[in-house]
Amino acid sequence: MRPDTLGVIGLGAVGGSVAWQASLAGVPRVLGFTPRPAEGVAAVRAGAISDLAPSVRFLVERSDLVVLAVPPAATFELFAPVARHLRPGALCTDVVPAKERIVQAARQAGLGERFAGSHPAVALARATFDGAEPAAFRRALVYVTPAGDDDAPAREVADFWATVCDAEPVILDAADHDAIVAWTRHLPRVVAALLARSCSADGPRGVTYGPEAREVSRPALGPVEVARDLLLLNRDAVVAALDDVETSLGGLQRALRDADAAALEDWLEEAASWRRRLEP
Amino acid sequence: MRPDTLGVIGLGAVGGSVAWQASLAGVPRVLGFTPRPAEGVAAVRAGAISDLAPSVRFLVERSDLVVLAVPPAATFELFAPVARHLRPGALCTDVVPAKERIVQAARQAGLGERFAGSHPAVALARATFDGAEPAAFRRALVYVTPAGDDDAPAREVADFWATVCDAEPVILDAADHDAIVAWTRHLPRVVAALLARSCSADGPRGVTYGPEAREVSRPALGPVEVARDLLLLNRDAVVAALDDVETSLGGLQRALRDADAAALEDWLEEAASWRRRLEP
Repeated sequence: MRPDTLGVIGLGAVGGSVAWQASLAGVPRVLGFTPRPAEGVAAVRAGAISDLAPSVRFLVERSDLVVLAVPPAATFELFAPVARHLRPGALCTDVVPAKERIVQAARQAGLGERFAGSHPAVALARATFDGAEPAAFRRALVYVTPAGDDDAPAREVADFWATVCDAEPVILDAADHDAIVAWTRHLPRVVAALLARSCSADGPRGVTYGPEAREVSRPALGPVEVARDLLLLNRDAVVAALDDVETSLGGLQRALRDADAAALEDWLEEAASWRRRLEP
Repeated sequence: MRPDTLGVIGLGAVGGSVAWQASLAGVPRVLGFTPRPAEGVAAVRAGAISDLAPSVRFLVERSDLVVLAVPPAATFELFAPVARHLRPGALCTDVVPAKERIVQAARQAGLGERFAGSHPAVALARATFDGAEPAAFRRALVYVTPAGDDDAPAREVADFWATVCDAEPVILDAADHDAIVAWTRHLPRVVAALLARSCSADGPRGVTYGPEAREVSRPALGPVEVARDLLLLNRDAVVAALDDVETSLGGLQRALRDADAAALEDWLEEAASWRRRLEP
């Protein structure tokens, strides 16, 4: 779908990028709402939105597509007011990177046939509007998960990502999505933090860490509350993935304790060969 | 020291960079030796060395400082011929990133008073001469470890790194060095591989990994045989660090299994706060 009026709630890096790109792509009216006045002013000045909405209700009542671009807890809270004020034929989506509980909550709020979840798989450098970039989703993978039995809303939302944002949407079941992103996005985040947490707790003091330490631990810099909420939202799948990490760690510890050069080389080679397939 | 004749054995990325920088810094004669003819030709063409030595003995007999820039196993094998042919007053160093067994071997070969170990803490993109850059060591941390009771050779070698290569040398005991780099360099390497190895063994197939996965696992691309040898050389310290990683992983698993938001937030915050101190 190409909405005549797009409503974006939350004008941080993700919401700001969606709104800005829609404005540049010729969506006639882009309404924005944010509880943070400075963020709203920045979005208006940049030309990312046509108008700042005075309330969630004002925005929802006027939009053909409402994008909830706020953290998980705020997303859950917005389902009831969106369900109450969304006009007939209009749709809603969100951007939370864990989807099963999100689509459940949307269904429970009565949005089942008017909602599809989205998860744009992008990593923006900053969380605020300063980090917004209209091109953020170009050729980016965006997961879209149906909330009801009918996947027509998911197809419309996927079409919005493709035609307005130049993204590459993939429609899949919310539970399948969560099992996949536990590995592809949440596990890398916690492994980065695992290195940092271990060094913080037990590493030597006053020493200089090398370039690899900076690189491997960089995702640990991401907002802690966002990571906490996401990991809890997707905890069954993340716990399962961490069990596999524990097994893999055990294999490495055994190879080193036994000074088993062949086993150690196999372990490292399996890792290197997987990583080569991910290039660059 | 500023040698009149510098001899560099091994003209890959590290050896090539040392030789090239010494040539640019005005060292009158830079001899290179490599068993790989193509590497030697590339080094001569680039002007990285004045002359290609026909043999290790030829190079060692003529050098004021010999830099062994070869993998660990080859480094151990070179101590005997270097000890035999090094002229009075000349010194030798190496670049293996684990030092205790290296300085022991140098002492056993009779090089105790003519050797100090070096570990330039740089990450070069490629291992071959194509990856050599004269500026590779500028402002880089280089550990220098004495091999005997007298630390005069270590001071001379540190001075070479500082004045010829613009590096920032730090002299410390080989055992202390190994305990530190187990954390600062070897652990990040294996944690990157831990993510890659886990995804390879147990992750979903045919899915797209996000930008965090690429970043966190990138050091797993480093040469497997080099990593294997280093980890074995420094295995006591690496095994100890991995025990701490296991404990840290256990804390995360507990917080997630118990859905303990406060404990999870503390765990993530400790990681983030350590990483912020490492910026950029």
